[in-house]
Amino acid sequence: MPAMNEFDLIARLTRTLPSNSTVVVGPGDDCAVLDLGLSDRWVLFKADAVVEGIHFAAGTAPEKVGHKALGRCLSDVAAMGGWPSSAVITLGLPRQWEPEYVERVYAGLGALAQRYQVALCGGETTQNPAGLLLSVALIGTVGKAQCVRRAGAEVGDAIFVTGELGGSRAGRHLEFEPRLVEARWLVERFKPHAMIDLSDGLAGDLPHLLRASGVGAELLSDAIPISRAAREQARRPAEAGPPPKPPRVAALTDGEDFELLLTVPPRSATPLLDAWKREFPAVRLSCIGKITTGTALSLRDRAGCHALALHGYTHFA
Amino acid sequence: MPAMNEFDLIARLTRTLPSNSTVVVGPGDDCAVLDLGLSDRWVLFKADAVVEGIHFAAGTAPEKVGHKALGRCLSDVAAMGGWPSSAVITLGLPRQWEPEYVERVYAGLGALAQRYQVALCGGETTQNPAGLLLSVALIGTVGKAQCVRRAGAEVGDAIFVTGELGGSRAGRHLEFEPRLVEARWLVERFKPHAMIDLSDGLAGDLPHLLRASGVGAELLSDAIPISRAAREQARRPAEAGPPPKPPRVAALTDGEDFELLLTVPPRSATPLLDAWKREFPAVRLSCIGKITTGTALSLRDRAGCHALALHGYTHFA
Repeated sequence: MPAMNEFDLIARLTRTLPSNSTVVVGPGDDCAVLDLGLSDRWVLFKADAVVEGIHFAAGTAPEKVGHKALGRCLSDVAAMGGWPSSAVITLGLPRQWEPEYVERVYAGLGALAQRYQVALCGGETTQNPAGLLLSVALIGTVGKAQCVRRAGAEVGDAIFVTGELGGSRAGRHLEFEPRLVEARWLVERFKPHAMIDLSDGLAGDLPHLLRASGVGAELLSDAIPISRAAREQARRPAEAGPPPKPPRVAALTDGEDFELLLTVPPRSATPLLDAWKREFPAVRLSCIGKITTGTALSLRDRAGCHALALHGYTHFA
Repeated sequence: MPAMNEFDLIARLTRTLPSNSTVVVGPGDDCAVLDLGLSDRWVLFKADAVVEGIHFAAGTAPEKVGHKALGRCLSDVAAMGGWPSSAVITLGLPRQWEPEYVERVYAGLGALAQRYQVALCGGETTQNPAGLLLSVALIGTVGKAQCVRRAGAEVGDAIFVTGELGGSRAGRHLEFEPRLVEARWLVERFKPHAMIDLSDGLAGDLPHLLRASGVGAELLSDAIPISRAAREQARRPAEAGPPPKPPRVAALTDGEDFELLLTVPPRSATPLLDAWKREFPAVRLSCIGKITTGTALSLRDRAGCHALALHGYTHFA
């Protein structure tokens, strides 16, 4: 285990990358944003990979592997307020592989792509001795007036999160629906000041949004929506290793929720909640706190307000 | 070793992929071509990966790994007659990694990107237990009138190849210069009927072009430009394993030349050669044969004309 974590490494690598005049938003947001000369739209560009043994266990239903690989990128496009257009796939195959397994991976990819009219327009295959790897590169577009970044949260903003958090590893991380439809509605009706998708856990990703916006936040512990999986996971006796996380800790720190975290001006909070309930009765939307001055992230519970010392999911941990 | 090779697998996977109205050219060419609504240009989209132990040996200078990873995609953009614009990187890190090594990989990526004004506008990191993996996704653009596909070769066309072939594994595969400048000049001055970049060897890639165009070809054995590396490799005594390839076989079958293979109408052959020599005195351009009716690929040498039975480099072989 090296001394440097993922975020330190990325910070070091992105210090001196070449850029050009097409780049509206470079490294450090959910997608890159490019101005290729379209009158009212920007192009979104993203790539991400899933690796056997890291993002899914050997023996996982292959359709779910394909679903997750594409879904992660779609979630990033949603977090910018955009809509996906086309994807190319890089498939890394282990020494032993079955054509039927790979076909079923592609069936999972294809079914999700079809649902959002995403073209799978190319790909490459390579060997990857360690295990199956699926790298997805995605192009989308976003209206210039609808594009939402991580930066932009303002002091006083209400902080919202979609769905329920924690315990995703029990299954949801392989089956989640990227919040594309919800994000499109949001940016058209209540354009958020800032938005990010939750891949590293609320306690891991909210700090990214705060740092990009130069603000702090206070979360209301009781308002954080806890998933059933996080509650069930806490009830299971620990057979070996560390004891199970309390549900609230799981909701704050488990990775791969793929929900949207966003901030809106305080005057929009109630109208947003009312309109959301009518539009998406099956999906929770929770106001979980507010943006504050300073740069600290604190959690208010019955014992008072204290600094949030939990860490989100780090890919290298 | 499974019974199915890379090309059979790809053929099977690409039978039923979802598409949409933005796709001008889907799977099966060097890049996908997308119509995103620009008046006179299409967007090119490509992704490819290099993996330690497959595309480069452990211990390779990291700058060269970065150069190769990006260079492969740039070569594909060149083969469509386009120009690159921006790239996002997915970095798969093995269990043990040194920040300095990764920084030097990015230095190699960055230097090549800078030379062609390519923005490195994002990326993700993941674990990849088998070894370092670098997946590059690239966006470029191409003038609608300049876009060259694999399909389009016509009976009677002269077949040209840039540079010299074979023996790339002796070093050139890590240091090649993608033929972007040459391709841009070609599509503006002598727009080829068809073009492809050589990653699987002349005997492996020419059939892709022929199949896409529905034609055959006759190559002139003596006209194939053989690299010094291929000649030197043939002279080295085989210590173990199979005897070294004769230089002409290496030029036909070694992979990773990253040269351009193209066809032009016969009346353009001589003017093209003359203009090329003035424009690129340091780069060879060789007329190596002609497009024929039928679908066969044959090789003419002093013994006559016979079917080409050699196979190119297959990634899974």
